[in-house]
Amino acid sequence: MRATFMYGAGDVRIEEVPDPTIEQPTDAIVRVTLTCVCGSDLHPYHSMPAGNTGTPMGHEFIGVIEEVGSAVTGLGPGDLVISPFAFSDNTCPFCREGFHTACRHGGWYGANGVGGAQAEKIRVPQASGTLVPIPADVEEKLLPSLLTLSDVYLTGYHAAHMGNAGPGRTVTVIGDGAVGLSAVLAAKRLGAEKIILMGRHATRTDLGRRFGATDVVAERGEEGVNRVRALTGGEGSHVVLEAVGHMPAYEQAYGVVRPGGVISRVGVPQYENAPVGFGSLFGKNITLNGGPAPVRAYIEAAIPQVLSGEIAPGQVFDAETSLDDVAEAYRLMDSREALKVLVRP
Amino acid sequence: MRATFMYGAGDVRIEEVPDPTIEQPTDAIVRVTLTCVCGSDLHPYHSMPAGNTGTPMGHEFIGVIEEVGSAVTGLGPGDLVISPFAFSDNTCPFCREGFHTACRHGGWYGANGVGGAQAEKIRVPQASGTLVPIPADVEEKLLPSLLTLSDVYLTGYHAAHMGNAGPGRTVTVIGDGAVGLSAVLAAKRLGAEKIILMGRHATRTDLGRRFGATDVVAERGEEGVNRVRALTGGEGSHVVLEAVGHMPAYEQAYGVVRPGGVISRVGVPQYENAPVGFGSLFGKNITLNGGPAPVRAYIEAAIPQVLSGEIAPGQVFDAETSLDDVAEAYRLMDSREALKVLVRP
Repeated sequence: MRATFMYGAGDVRIEEVPDPTIEQPTDAIVRVTLTCVCGSDLHPYHSMPAGNTGTPMGHEFIGVIEEVGSAVTGLGPGDLVISPFAFSDNTCPFCREGFHTACRHGGWYGANGVGGAQAEKIRVPQASGTLVPIPADVEEKLLPSLLTLSDVYLTGYHAAHMGNAGPGRTVTVIGDGAVGLSAVLAAKRLGAEKIILMGRHATRTDLGRRFGATDVVAERGEEGVNRVRALTGGEGSHVVLEAVGHMPAYEQAYGVVRPGGVISRVGVPQYENAPVGFGSLFGKNITLNGGPAPVRAYIEAAIPQVLSGEIAPGQVFDAETSLDDVAEAYRLMDSREALKVLVRP
Repeated sequence: MRATFMYGAGDVRIEEVPDPTIEQPTDAIVRVTLTCVCGSDLHPYHSMPAGNTGTPMGHEFIGVIEEVGSAVTGLGPGDLVISPFAFSDNTCPFCREGFHTACRHGGWYGANGVGGAQAEKIRVPQASGTLVPIPADVEEKLLPSLLTLSDVYLTGYHAAHMGNAGPGRTVTVIGDGAVGLSAVLAAKRLGAEKIILMGRHATRTDLGRRFGATDVVAERGEEGVNRVRALTGGEGSHVVLEAVGHMPAYEQAYGVVRPGGVISRVGVPQYENAPVGFGSLFGKNITLNGGPAPVRAYIEAAIPQVLSGEIAPGQVFDAETSLDDVAEAYRLMDSREALKVLVRP
């Protein structure tokens, strides 16, 4: 089969590799029918040292089950399924508490002998706990929105949920990428009335407005912080959803957050150390939370919202390539010519 | 009057200064009847550069109002009152949201022209919002416990409250100082069943057990982390209450916290930058919160608990000095000969 590998910054290749096979009785093999490139894939696309071994890429997919291991229950060949971007058993103590990305038997696609989703097929560990079926006769036009439940929309939802976005709370979203826009949509769903989107790409912030943003702040740094403070009566934002992952976004977050407020991060931090002391978080009783979204905890509630048309998060996709052209998908997103690119194997 | 000033590390002096007077119509002048030394006073006691100007010390007190400004309502001369360690108007948007330590008209004792509480008298700004009356005929023996509502017990309570300590949640308290022990008592009050106290001073951890600790871990660093993990079935603690403020305590906190758990800090951080990235907080969806306790938000509910004998947080006091001997109070706490010292003007 064909699968995507990254060999270093900017070096994405399609290669012919053996089909995956059942290795554990809890595995399933899924034929991928729809996948995409994630904003987080761009981090290695910028910084991965060149090497001779390719890293399997991709972690968002919808597909059809081809085969299941002997211990897989509730699912079988022919089922159309969505996979969260991390696999999990859905039964361990951390899963039961809603933090599936910390599952004791879970893990990540593209690592430790598990392939990536930008491929024709993929082996899914812990299949019974991981894969969520969708109706086989689902309308084709809904598939992009269903694919966002694999990661991007529910990552935005995780930010809004952990940030306690809701009625009476001002929400500021940092980042107009697909996760940031998803966070806007999720905050709107949760009842937030004032949603300030910090971003400077008009086509993206226009989609943000359609998703529910009431204000757009294009300025960055100190100027951006001052604009948000002015929009909040000088008080700051109750909730800040940080969907970038770079230090300037973190600094903006604690610049605009209100005393007693929450900074909820879903942009994968490209730093380990950051200000958290009296001058940044502690003095104002700021809560910092977020992390890799436990999509599995939210996906069953979100599927009917997509099927009924209540939400259409698939609007974040504005381009499409074939699997053979996946390198072009990366290029389009990296150059910001596209917001998020569908890839069809 | 006599008042306490710090001139540098280890240099605490009693000096004769003019009595405070009403400066703003919202001020009150209080004659201090009971005060104490705070663990946070020991930070400058260790590190303040020597200088020619003394810093007024002390921020916890019970006293009798002597005089009020023309705008003070609901309080008057002769009232016995407790003051939170920070003053606040109790009406601004941040106060209304329960974060009085961020009050728009609030501030700290011992700074910006406001004196300290380790003195015969003190000027209290925003007196109507700040001071809370207690019955004039309160039993003398209850006064130490009431004094803890000025800071130490309600700081421990703030940690437990922000950490969401409660039934079904394992709580680890880092630090066996008076705030840590108060956090144990507060977690117990909130219904936590398993409370692990990390501390190595037996007389203190014994009091911790009386306050509700179910386990005591004397080890520190990696060894201490491993002990706590063993006590929690290898899973870690849902809630960690960090009552120290030094980096090793922060490192212990993220070492013992469970995925999806909370680190609630009330020890004043002696660092500005700390690990918060994928390897420490983000990867496990850890929540970091806490800050200067908005004691004013909790004090009215706590007073009846002390008056009825439901809680006796004043057990943290194990020594007493006169105001003239306040330097000895600092020495006793710094040398760990005393846990917390009452000072009687």
